[in-house]
Amino acid sequence: MTGQQKPAQRYGAGIWHFATYVDRYATDGYGPQRSLLEMIDLAGQVGDLSVVDINYPFPGGGVSFEEVEAALKRNNLSVIGITPEIYTQVFSKGSFTNPDPGVRRLANEMCNEAAKVVRRFGADYVKLWPGQDGWDYPFQVDYHDLWKLSMDGVGELASQNPDLKFVIEYKPREPRNHMSYDSVARTLLGIEKIGLPNIGILLDFGHALYGGESPADSAQLAIDYGRLFGMDVNDNLRGWDDDMIAGSIHPMELMEFFYVLRKNKWKGVWQLDQFPFRDDCVGAAKSAISFLKHIDQALDRLDWDAMKAAQSRQDAVAATNLARAALFNF
Amino acid sequence: MTGQQKPAQRYGAGIWHFATYVDRYATDGYGPQRSLLEMIDLAGQVGDLSVVDINYPFPGGGVSFEEVEAALKRNNLSVIGITPEIYTQVFSKGSFTNPDPGVRRLANEMCNEAAKVVRRFGADYVKLWPGQDGWDYPFQVDYHDLWKLSMDGVGELASQNPDLKFVIEYKPREPRNHMSYDSVARTLLGIEKIGLPNIGILLDFGHALYGGESPADSAQLAIDYGRLFGMDVNDNLRGWDDDMIAGSIHPMELMEFFYVLRKNKWKGVWQLDQFPFRDDCVGAAKSAISFLKHIDQALDRLDWDAMKAAQSRQDAVAATNLARAALFNF
Amino acid sequence: MTGQQKPAQRYGAGIWHFATYVDRYATDGYGPQRSLLEMIDLAGQVGDLSVVDINYPFPGGGVSFEEVEAALKRNNLSVIGITPEIYTQVFSKGSFTNPDPGVRRLANEMCNEAAKVVRRFGADYVKLWPGQDGWDYPFQVDYHDLWKLSMDGVGELASQNPDLKFVIEYKPREPRNHMSYDSVARTLLGIEKIGLPNIGILLDFGHALYGGESPADSAQLAIDYGRLFGMDVNDNLRGWDDDMIAGSIHPMELMEFFYVLRKNKWKGVWQLDQFPFRDDCVGAAKSAISFLKHIDQALDRLDWDAMKAAQSRQDAVAATNLARAALFNF
Amino acid sequence: MTGQQKPAQRYGAGIWHFATYVDRYATDGYGPQRSLLEMIDLAGQVGDLSVVDINYPFPGGGVSFEEVEAALKRNNLSVIGITPEIYTQVFSKGSFTNPDPGVRRLANEMCNEAAKVVRRFGADYVKLWPGQDGWDYPFQVDYHDLWKLSMDGVGELASQNPDLKFVIEYKPREPRNHMSYDSVARTLLGIEKIGLPNIGILLDFGHALYGGESPADSAQLAIDYGRLFGMDVNDNLRGWDDDMIAGSIHPMELMEFFYVLRKNKWKGVWQLDQFPFRDDCVGAAKSAISFLKHIDQALDRLDWDAMKAAQSRQDAVAATNLARAALFNF
Repeated sequence: MTGQQKPAQRYGAGIWHFATYVDRYATDGYGPQRSLLEMIDLAGQVGDLSVVDINYPFPGGGVSFEEVEAALKRNNLSVIGITPEIYTQVFSKGSFTNPDPGVRRLANEMCNEAAKVVRRFGADYVKLWPGQDGWDYPFQVDYHDLWKLSMDGVGELASQNPDLKFVIEYKPREPRNHMSYDSVARTLLGIEKIGLPNIGILLDFGHALYGGESPADSAQLAIDYGRLFGMDVNDNLRGWDDDMIAGSIHPMELMEFFYVLRKNKWKGVWQLDQFPFRDDCVGAAKSAISFLKHIDQALDRLDWDAMKAAQSRQDAVAATNLARAALFNF
Repeated sequence: MTGQQKPAQRYGAGIWHFATYVDRYATDGYGPQRSLLEMIDLAGQVGDLSVVDINYPFPGGGVSFEEVEAALKRNNLSVIGITPEIYTQVFSKGSFTNPDPGVRRLANEMCNEAAKVVRRFGADYVKLWPGQDGWDYPFQVDYHDLWKLSMDGVGELASQNPDLKFVIEYKPREPRNHMSYDSVARTLLGIEKIGLPNIGILLDFGHALYGGESPADSAQLAIDYGRLFGMDVNDNLRGWDDDMIAGSIHPMELMEFFYVLRKNKWKGVWQLDQFPFRDDCVGAAKSAISFLKHIDQALDRLDWDAMKAAQSRQDAVAATNLARAALFNF
Repeated sequence: MTGQQKPAQRYGAGIWHFATYVDRYATDGYGPQRSLLEMIDLAGQVGDLSVVDINYPFPGGGVSFEEVEAALKRNNLSVIGITPEIYTQVFSKGSFTNPDPGVRRLANEMCNEAAKVVRRFGADYVKLWPGQDGWDYPFQVDYHDLWKLSMDGVGELASQNPDLKFVIEYKPREPRNHMSYDSVARTLLGIEKIGLPNIGILLDFGHALYGGESPADSAQLAIDYGRLFGMDVNDNLRGWDDDMIAGSIHPMELMEFFYVLRKNKWKGVWQLDQFPFRDDCVGAAKSAISFLKHIDQALDRLDWDAMKAAQSRQDAVAATNLARAALFNF
Repeated sequence: MTGQQKPAQRYGAGIWHFATYVDRYATDGYGPQRSLLEMIDLAGQVGDLSVVDINYPFPGGGVSFEEVEAALKRNNLSVIGITPEIYTQVFSKGSFTNPDPGVRRLANEMCNEAAKVVRRFGADYVKLWPGQDGWDYPFQVDYHDLWKLSMDGVGELASQNPDLKFVIEYKPREPRNHMSYDSVARTLLGIEKIGLPNIGILLDFGHALYGGESPADSAQLAIDYGRLFGMDVNDNLRGWDDDMIAGSIHPMELMEFFYVLRKNKWKGVWQLDQFPFRDDCVGAAKSAISFLKHIDQALDRLDWDAMKAAQSRQDAVAATNLARAALFNF
């Protein structure tokens, strides 16, 4: 593992990393709104990014494909995925699971539009994050029906676009109190039931973490089902999707996550999904990527044989010491 | 306790209960924006509300005092408190604890403006919710300095306006990852250190609950320090400030909260602080108030002597059975 | 649903409900140890129990089958399941996933012994709760191997005993920091992969709740896969497996759980899995069962057509009001 | 700060670090029971420990003071504190807050016995951890009375032994669902109310962390009140008192904790409070202490001036980068 020639690791980010945000209190935003073109130029300033994931419709509006392509080009960026915004006002009671069939149709149409954008950009996938699909209160929904709608909505898209990949980004909650695709296991259950080859998981490290999963275990499980189509990282305090700088709180679990990816020879982009509400977005991205590079080097330093031996004994002390030696350089 | 003639319980709500909301995903809102006058008219439709707490500057803007007074009058509402919006863009890195002294000055000025509005409306208090005061990351702040700024900011206001009451609404987190006034005990510590008589606590049932407190215990503690100046209720899933319909999840703890208030002869308005993102706001308020009335009656039905005896034995089974008998009518 | 003649609901309990407990602090126990026969006699005092789940080897030891049968008979109790104790000292580093193949063999043998006891008592199932199978630290285990061992261990037992049912009781954590069978979806994934008909889920309401699931949704999912073989109830504060009196904290979610069971015509025993550390165990069981009966009647009172209509609209306020009207009698 | 000659940092541990444990499942323990003398010899094997905190009555029983002193001497250990076991069976419904005045008297007597042991060993303090004082259920206790008993119990001891220090180790919960001394702020409120100089806080890093506090902030607050009399460290997953190896999960927050201690020139022993249920106890202690030494060196490497400047700007990115550079050596 350690001796082989490694190709340079590629990095990416959701373009929203470079947006400004609103929440229910700072309704006027955490800064002045930015256009998509400005966001792309900020992404370019990070210096290490190769790809971005872009929302569709383009945030801010009033921008042409040509302008976006030009902005990407001048920043040496390409598009890895397109995220249809199936969580805005019209979808606030759900996209695939909306009680109104007309809104469900809108969600399907918007995702099909996103599929066209994926083709135009030569991107890898349509990313589905149906964050408004779920429930808030006991008794609010018929769980059987809701889950069926969740699967049907994704399955229909994958059937309509067999040439493309669709990735589901699961998340325990927010903005819904409980999101339909809430965990790696539930999402895999759904994908297996749908039974199509072009549906996979976009594993968000932070979502797994605050959902009570061990993200490295989640990655292994998705890989074992052949469904780990993408991933992104950030950090949080285990109670909410805080989208903090990767590694700022849980460096050991972050390293373990990449350990499992490397062990399984998973080749893919290491993406950021951070929300630097009050912080300099370029600085937050640089901070994260410098730490990802540190982890990559730590995995080079790690004594893999000793780690495998420790794991075969399930020896927590030895495994902790080995990981520490590589990560903290002591 | 049960035999005495009770005056009718008064109910209130934060006027934001009748707003529409944005969050970081539904940036175009969970519905079309409403003016303050529309919100007041919706509050009037609830039928049981006597008072409201109003944000200042008035949400939406472009409305005069006279218009607000007229709207209140036609809905038989008066103002209990004014909440200065010290958590919008300009305050996104803090109000009393902002690193920029100029912004701290702005916060003081806005709160003094709010004090004038309190006087004009004959309201009870200025409500301080410095939700952006705190920190997100380890190492981000000097905790000693930050806490001192938190106390100084409130103390200065209370000194400048000795004729008025100031209430602090503490909260564990959101929008900050950690809020400075995070718990009942911390807030009381701060209030005792400031040492002024006109500072108290606005106890939010849900904040106490998801902060790991027993809200009834929090109320007792604030009362024992003579600092329970106000309260509001809602519900949540103990992990976040979900601001759901009061009693929809934790009816026993809600009843216990009012049990402690009645036991201590606390006389005050029972207010709502709910955020019905996707739900009918008038219906959500009616649902909550009908349940609060049910609790009030349950407290009439409760066998207080038996409950006191059970508590003196710390007998959980007996206490549970007594509370259930009163609350569930069996 | 409401008009049909209902057979009397049967109730049960894990016999450990009537034990005394130790923990890492009260190492001398929360009371003097009790023999299995004493526990059975206490279970008999509850008055409403028809069945019990019994640990094997019999707790306390030194008791014969004949004595147990006599004790059961004099208390009108039968055995629903046998729980092999695959979580004691010898299994403290795991049962099915122990790094030592010899210990894994012991676990298999103990479960096969339990299978014989199931046959002898004419019980319904062997209950598998491999609470020591999992991990505590990042890097401690190879997740792929561990999960395979988890599945293999259960699959081997089910193959060896095709005449019997095996139920897996999943749980997020405790005593392990992360348990291998941690959620309803993960457990169903494993069961589907094993692919045998005689493996199902024993759904513990509290485990689902503190794992971030909506227990009613978990029940629906297990039913939809034909795998809901048993269930038990208790309550907690959503952060730990507190095993409190059923309904003492979350009556609405408890009612919803039984609503889903009735809706799906699920016929089975309503069992208790409570740990009354400091409380009278008979009183705690009576308190719970009286509340379960109250819920059963509330489901009779519920307006099912209106509830289905509310759910088809995903109308949280209407659904909450309907459930409240039935549960709180107002 | 960085230039001055530092005395060697002293390390310590609760002697229970070297015990074996029971819990409600592995009732036969996670290993064979050990005598206090064996534990002391294991503590000696760690090599870096100078002091231990010892339970009283001596765990296992049947050991004389002379034997304990001899064991300590041969391992170069002295005693920092004595922890009276006010949480075993007789105290399972509470020590200072037990509803039975006779049991409260027993608690007082046991703590006075512990005070004598402190004097005999020349230790620093009696450590009070009233883990059974609190409540499990809503309505179970009268919060006013319970809190008064909590304060009275500690106050009486401090008055009876003015020559000694008493330290309170607060904790959110376990074994009680809610512990009376639950947080740093609540404990300080109580201490200030009691008003005696010889009562302070023993700050457990993990208790602060899983209680939603930032441990560094908790330390600063206790220092600002002159009440930080001791501390110990471990780690957890923020939901429970997992008592894992220090720094294994939260290295950044652990470093920040020691940063605040050094900044305030707090001189005291760095103690471990770990429970290595399934792990080699000597190895777990060595692993923790090697990491504490790494943190101590990281604090030497840290650019303190730059950090203070970043904190004065509340600049999370800069502060994170500075801490990382020192901690991860990059």
